[in-house]
Parts: sequence; C-alpha cells; structure tokens
Amino acid sequence: MTIVTGSVSMSLDGFVGPEPGEDGSGVHERLHRWMYDLVAWRERQNLEGGSPNIDSDVVAEEFHQAGAYLLGRNTFDLGEERWGEDPPFRGPVFVVTHRPRPVLTRRNGTVFAFVTEGFESAVAQAKSAANGMDVLCTGGPDVLRQGLSTGLLDELQIHMSPVVLGGGVRLFDGLANYPLEFTMERVIHSGTVTHLRLCAER
Amino acid sequence: MTIVTGSVSMSLDGFVGPEPGEDGSGVHERLHRWMYDLVAWRERQNLEGGSPNIDSDVVAEEFHQAGAYLLGRNTFDLGEERWGEDPPFRGPVFVVTHRPRPVLTRRNGTVFAFVTEGFESAVAQAKSAANGMDVLCTGGPDVLRQGLSTGLLDELQIHMSPVVLGGGVRLFDGLANYPLEFTMERVIHSGTVTHLRLCAER
Repeated sequence: MTIVTGSVSMSLDGFVGPEPGEDGSGVHERLHRWMYDLVAWRERQNLEGGSPNIDSDVVAEEFHQAGAYLLGRNTFDLGEERWGEDPPFRGPVFVVTHRPRPVLTRRNGTVFAFVTEGFESAVAQAKSAANGMDVLCTGGPDVLRQGLSTGLLDELQIHMSPVVLGGGVRLFDGLANYPLEFTMERVIHSGTVTHLRLCAER
Repeated sequence: MTIVTGSVSMSLDGFVGPEPGEDGSGVHERLHRWMYDLVAWRERQNLEGGSPNIDSDVVAEEFHQAGAYLLGRNTFDLGEERWGEDPPFRGPVFVVTHRPRPVLTRRNGTVFAFVTEGFESAVAQAKSAANGMDVLCTGGPDVLRQGLSTGLLDELQIHMSPVVLGGGVRLFDGLANYPLEFTMERVIHSGTVTHLRLCAER
C-alpha cells in the first residue's frame, strides 16, 4: 500500500528551518549537517565517498522506499539551480504551487510536475505515480503542515539534532487539529542524530 | 562526581506544561501519562503494583542516582498537599524561591529547604548535600531554564511523548544563550515514550 511519509530535520526546540527572508544558512547547515558526509546522501548528489553508517542506511531507506516525491514550491525554487541536470530524486516529483510551469524533465528519471489544483490533488497524483511504493515529502514546512492538518500524511520521520536553536520556523506551529497523536514506530540513534519515525493515529 | 541533571516530560512540539493560569490538567495528564502505571513511580507514591518495564527502570534510575533534589517554588506549591507526609523524594530537596519559609521535614528522609539566595546558591547547597550522588531537578520550567542559561545543568533527560499539543509552556523558550549544543548520550525507546539523555557541551 502506498503511504505518504514526511522527512524533516529538526532541532530539540522544534525548528526545521530559518525564518523566511532571513539569512538562514547557519540554521540550515546546523539542521542538515548530519547528512552531508553520508554515502547515501553523497551518492544522490553524484559525489563519491562518505561514511557508510547507520545514518546513511536511514537516508538510503527513505530514497529506496520512495516511488514519488512531494515538494513545496519554495523548496523546489531553492533547490532547482543547485540540483542541476541530475537532481537526487530519480523519480516523479510533484511540486505544490500556485504558479503554473511546464513539466521539467531531468536526467535519471527525475521529472518535476507543477500541481496548481491544490495539495490534495498533488497527493493523489503522487500516490498514483508511486507505483506501489511510498510518496516521500521532504518539505518545506508548509507542505508538511498541510499533510498533518489534512490527515493525508501517514508517517513522519524526524531527524532530530541535539541542539536548541531558539529561532526559525517550527514544523508544528499553526496546525488546524491539535492535539495530534502519533505512535512512535521506530527510534534509531546514531550518536549524531536521532531518527524518530512517527505514525499518525487515526 | 556530583552532576546536576534535569528530568522533564515533553511533547514533540516542545511543550512541558500548561500556560500559567490556565486549567492545564489535560496537558499535564497527557505529558505524564506514561509514568502513572510504572512500578518505580507507584512505589514512590506508596502505591503497590504497576508495570515493571523499561520506562519503570528509567524512572527508578533517576531516583536512585539522586542524592538531592532541586525544585522551583511553583512545583513545590502544586505538590505539597498531594505529596502529603511522605513525598517521593526521600532525601534533601532545595526549593528555589523568593518567599522564605522554615525547613519542612517529612517522613523517610524528605527535607525541604527554601533557598532565597538565588538559583546558584540552591545548586551549590544541593550539590553539597548530595553526598557524591547527583542533583536531580524535576522542574518547573523556570528552574530548568535557569540551569540551561547559567550552564549549571550538566545533563537533561527528556521523556518525549509522541503528541503535538499546540499550546502550553515550552522548555526552551526565553533562554539567554542560543544555540545550545548537546551530546545525545543515550536514547531509550519503549514504544510509549522516548527517553533522550542529553549532555551539555562545554
């Protein structure tokens, strides 16, 4: 069965990125530092080498289980240039946006489709394209929040770094349906980061 | 070596209790639900029975390693009547307060001392009384924050429940010294709650 799963790097105080409009490179770097040297991450950036450890296995698992991807428009816009001709997805990507844009085909199977009919339509299209595998939503926070508020996000994996940032954007602010109960399905702790896999309770 | 360690139950979105002045019984119950049926918790309330599981072991460990306790005045005031003649501490407790009060001696070794010379003095007195064991601070949030802001808190164990509350008091708001880096020393996951033991980086 195709499920929709989110993946997000978070601080102990719940921040998943910088405030919009601020220079958030420090916040972004601190939250994602744990993955930059991983074999599985580097391989998707077409880089050799890196550390083959449990964190790398978690990243590899997320990519391997994903048959399609769901992204917000900001996340796409920030990534487009950096990803270049060979983005890390290697599969269909559905970008939730208000601004139409023609389908963008990249190498190795990455195809960006821009969905202007709303979040639920993007989820339906991604599920249909996932070919029995999962739909992976890697952000941004707005899209993950829509998944949480609509109940369309089945799972969420939080990669929690042991840092208190004190500022930025919180994943769980501004939801429509508190309290949200989860089952903590799996916890993997590497020493650097703790991977919390949460399953939404229905 | 005597270290100062904090223990707090927290939601996924960082809340550790209700807003002051609100009826927070629902929030409090949701955050602490994981411990009510534990053998180690019940034993300290002079109740028989309960579940002897890994969560109970974590609670037992906290009590066993504590040679003295550090509390905020609100936490003491809320607990005084409920704890009665035989509070769960069974050792010296130092209450940080602006309102002087004579020493209060209860059964089985619990002695409450009210420290009006400030947080650092309370920490020093608790360390001295701990007899080579640890000082355990179980809250409230203000006292834990003082420990984080002054650098006097060496360790913090977060008991994280898989719930998003959307409101209340956050532990990590209003600190003086962001970012705070920790080492994630140990993670124990029971299925009900995840115990994150953080060691402050110096």
